[in-house]
Amino acid sequence: MERAVRPFRVLTLSGSLRAASSNTALLEAAAALAPAQLDLALYRPWGELPSFNPDLEGAEPAEVLHFRTALRDADAVLIASPEYAHGVPGAFKNALDWVVGSAEFINKPVAAINASGRAIHAQASLLDTLAMMNADVVVAACRTVALPTNKLDRTAMLADAGIVATLREALHALHAHLLSLELSTGS
Amino acid sequence: MERAVRPFRVLTLSGSLRAASSNTALLEAAAALAPAQLDLALYRPWGELPSFNPDLEGAEPAEVLHFRTALRDADAVLIASPEYAHGVPGAFKNALDWVVGSAEFINKPVAAINASGRAIHAQASLLDTLAMMNADVVVAACRTVALPTNKLDRTAMLADAGIVATLREALHALHAHLLSLELSTGS
Repeated sequence: MERAVRPFRVLTLSGSLRAASSNTALLEAAAALAPAQLDLALYRPWGELPSFNPDLEGAEPAEVLHFRTALRDADAVLIASPEYAHGVPGAFKNALDWVVGSAEFINKPVAAINASGRAIHAQASLLDTLAMMNADVVVAACRTVALPTNKLDRTAMLADAGIVATLREALHALHAHLLSLELSTGS
Repeated sequence: MERAVRPFRVLTLSGSLRAASSNTALLEAAAALAPAQLDLALYRPWGELPSFNPDLEGAEPAEVLHFRTALRDADAVLIASPEYAHGVPGAFKNALDWVVGSAEFINKPVAAINASGRAIHAQASLLDTLAMMNADVVVAACRTVALPTNKLDRTAMLADAGIVATLREALHALHAHLLSLELSTGS
């Protein structure tokens, strides 16, 4: 009955390192809207990971081990990523490359929210990569949040009824999925 | 008539940082097979580029400026990249992200050779990204080189008639394209 005393831990990952990133703001807004049973925490240091090199497997830098631990400790992962040149931001994909072999994403519930209806290549490519890593992609929680501009910060997003409703739907779907897993495993 | 006195400069980029990378070996074999009119030079330090952050545009680290200069100085680019988790290696895509805004790839003749017939997702995604960057993708020079194993080094590749023939076809197509551009611009 451990779950009766702690919320689900949801690690959030913004695919952009910009200080004023819409994707980061979206995850901050989601954290503010999350029900008490979901604890959303943004993991920022993935941008410090070095370039993935298979020769380093078994001798990974400390940043890589830190990222893997953060993923292992999470009950779920929520991603919001921009699209760069028709693809997933390379640096963000590089972070994922570091955890293909170490398997933290296997069966991990993961959802991706998309801050732009135009970023369809990156969203499709990201979900394909996550599926290939055997993540438990929670399709019902993957939403496109149509932002009227890319100038909105967290506060402006929380004042927009449409954005709030879409984020609540995504969070509700993710929460329902985590509860269903808990019931099915009897933990 | 500058071209009468110097070969075309072809910058080669291996998408893998592994010391024993098949993709790197393929580019080394290509360099050995290239006609005198094509000078192939491998650019290794892209792996040292930091994570792309749009906030750094205008204040780019020295490694980024070095990469941009190398691209600007090249008449063409030849890429050989592996596939990681159904995508372009993130670190390699990160290098490309650094040159979307600075435009070194615009109208640059680029070809990609693929060391595995199974790496179809990454090859398609890479060509899509290059096309989106308005590179001059030389389709006739993009080849899949079917390697019998991933254990071949440059010497073993140069001893394989099939690999040699495919690389020669790619180089010939790239050379023909560069000559046709030279004729059409009258330089």
